[in-house]
Amino acid sequence: MSRYRLHYAPDNASLAVRLALEELGQSYETVLVDRAARAQAQPAFRRVNPAGRIPALETPQGPIFETAAILLHLADTHGALAPRPDAADRGIFLSHLFFLSNTVQAELRLLAYPETYVGREAPAAAAALRARVKRNLSWHLDLVEAAAGAGHGWLGAEVPSVADLLLACLLRWFAIYPPGETGWYDLSGRPALRRVAARVETREAARRAAAAEGLGPSPFTAPELPDPPEGSAV
Amino acid sequence: MSRYRLHYAPDNASLAVRLALEELGQSYETVLVDRAARAQAQPAFRRVNPAGRIPALETPQGPIFETAAILLHLADTHGALAPRPDAADRGIFLSHLFFLSNTVQAELRLLAYPETYVGREAPAAAAALRARVKRNLSWHLDLVEAAAGAGHGWLGAEVPSVADLLLACLLRWFAIYPPGETGWYDLSGRPALRRVAARVETREAARRAAAAEGLGPSPFTAPELPDPPEGSAV
Repeated sequence: MSRYRLHYAPDNASLAVRLALEELGQSYETVLVDRAARAQAQPAFRRVNPAGRIPALETPQGPIFETAAILLHLADTHGALAPRPDAADRGIFLSHLFFLSNTVQAELRLLAYPETYVGREAPAAAAALRARVKRNLSWHLDLVEAAAGAGHGWLGAEVPSVADLLLACLLRWFAIYPPGETGWYDLSGRPALRRVAARVETREAARRAAAAEGLGPSPFTAPELPDPPEGSAV
Repeated sequence: MSRYRLHYAPDNASLAVRLALEELGQSYETVLVDRAARAQAQPAFRRVNPAGRIPALETPQGPIFETAAILLHLADTHGALAPRPDAADRGIFLSHLFFLSNTVQAELRLLAYPETYVGREAPAAAAALRARVKRNLSWHLDLVEAAAGAGHGWLGAEVPSVADLLLACLLRWFAIYPPGETGWYDLSGRPALRRVAARVETREAARRAAAAEGLGPSPFTAPELPDPPEGSAV
């Protein structure tokens, strides 16, 4: 019996949680959420995450959700991949993790699913939203570059933290999603972000996750659309 | 000398942090961020939060930012207002806290500052964004109502947790911001949320915060636009 059950879809936000479980050496089962059938909106999935967003993680204490919450909880439970609660750099680490979650990852949702925020009846509004969000994201990635370059708060860490795992996934997704809307994204002036992607990619956890979800040979440094063995990313 | 310095503006997200500092009995100094002069975008403030968002908290370990990160860190540092990292309900508490931060609070920003997300040249896009975000928020508040009503994970707790403090502030802000755009908001079918607001309002911390920021006699159960003794909310 595994301690954990990860409800996932290939190349979804669950990827960051899979990387953390692999890094922590935890055994886990996976439950595929069939996005093509919108299973994430069905009652079975809503029992593990009422908000209907992937991932959810079943734990011995019950199901939990929200990618960054799961990451932080796994790190704290197993005493790795994040500064301990009483460490001097815990506060700035949490600042980075929440910023990635409520700003950078939230902006990926705006970019990928603009109709969720402006409706389907207003294509001009969706275009205006996407254009502006790309500008905001460019600036926000500059902020993350500076933070990762400064190397405090376990962002840009020598051994990737859970914040680095989430960041590497976000960088992957910006490079490929949504198809046709990735021209704004450019790491050429952002060496610290490139380094985060490269470091995560060298990990055995990344190799395993890439194999499980069909992410190709260079999932973080040269991302391509996935070819998953089961399920679909969108 | 106080241990903490809170960079705040009246009735801004800093309010949640002020409530937590008061609940924890911590002495703190305040530094007013002059929003009328857009001081939050100036270099002096960016030294404490590069993202230019209020609040920031100076701690003995350096400045930290992001409202929910500060709340969690204060709770963990002082061992109150949140389940301990090894408690059984820690994971679901974190799930709630991140959802409030990256979804509910993020949607308040979309509602209050739509031009930040669609530009100023597209008033129809801003209107479409606001209309849809109000719908999304209604549903998301239903989810939070269910979670607070279930009373696990320290949301809807007898003694307010930091998640309750943030939630009470969000409920206040939805009731009054942005002026003219609050008609969607209705707690009549949401008794658990009403209870969170009422419980927070009974606290001495709330009375002190209301006095410091000019929030009136019923800042959470019957919010009115503030009349702050210094600074401005917008």
